[in-house]
Amino acid sequence: MSYKNVLVAVDLTEESDQVLTKARHIAEKDGAKLALVHVVKPIEHVYGGFGAVGLAGDFSAQMATLEQQAVSHAQEQLAKMGKAIGVDKNRLFVPVGSASREIHRLAKEEKIDLIVIGSHGRHGLGLLLGSTANGVLHGASCDVLAVRVALES
Amino acid sequence: MSYKNVLVAVDLTEESDQVLTKARHIAEKDGAKLALVHVVKPIEHVYGGFGAVGLAGDFSAQMATLEQQAVSHAQEQLAKMGKAIGVDKNRLFVPVGSASREIHRLAKEEKIDLIVIGSHGRHGLGLLLGSTANGVLHGASCDVLAVRVALES
Repeated sequence: MSYKNVLVAVDLTEESDQVLTKARHIAEKDGAKLALVHVVKPIEHVYGGFGAVGLAGDFSAQMATLEQQAVSHAQEQLAKMGKAIGVDKNRLFVPVGSASREIHRLAKEEKIDLIVIGSHGRHGLGLLLGSTANGVLHGASCDVLAVRVALES
Repeated sequence: MSYKNVLVAVDLTEESDQVLTKARHIAEKDGAKLALVHVVKPIEHVYGGFGAVGLAGDFSAQMATLEQQAVSHAQEQLAKMGKAIGVDKNRLFVPVGSASREIHRLAKEEKIDLIVIGSHGRHGLGLLLGSTANGVLHGASCDVLAVRVALES
């Protein structure tokens, strides 16, 4: 019944620490291995409008470069994070794509039995800021722990 | 960072055992107290059409009795479950209402820091059978562990 392989989805904001702390707590108690993932959105999702109207070659190349920079930046951040808490380099993942789809894919490939992800909530209003946690829960083939992160206020 | 008060939402099907087992595992490691909840749907939600057209007195009374029987049955089941795993009687809850709303309300009243709930998923299709887990995650003011229950097949 113990968890063996825990995948922590981090958005690389300050709130990631709260999510990581909970994940480490569970992993340590169960003697589970940790893996970290940060999913980078494809540049055409961030600037969807441009893709639809077509791009001049130079601009298109610049956007591809921007995406690559986002991946490199995330890899550096994840490497720091992983080093600080002792996660193997080969268990740090920075895929490009839809967050929930990439997390589900990785969870299967890495035989993950628990996905830990941050979720925002607002008392009383029933609102969820950011739908990633719901998206990950929806269709996950393993357990999902949604860590309620405190909102800056 | 340990959980102190864990609320387990059970649907009283055979799958409840899988959810309970995970919840107990976490609670034991953290030395947390367990509480159990089963939410009974109001009879007018189950037979919504009747409410809209108005009910003859006798039939209305029969439906209220049916709801009360559902509550009594759930209380008995929950009492057995609680006894088997050593949950205090005063930490067994059978509210009538919307599952997510009642679970959120109870979580606040009982100072719950982790809600454990079963969720169904279908590999590959991204379908979720039963939306309770998503509803509970949405707007929860504490962490939520969605335990992926195996489907009978």
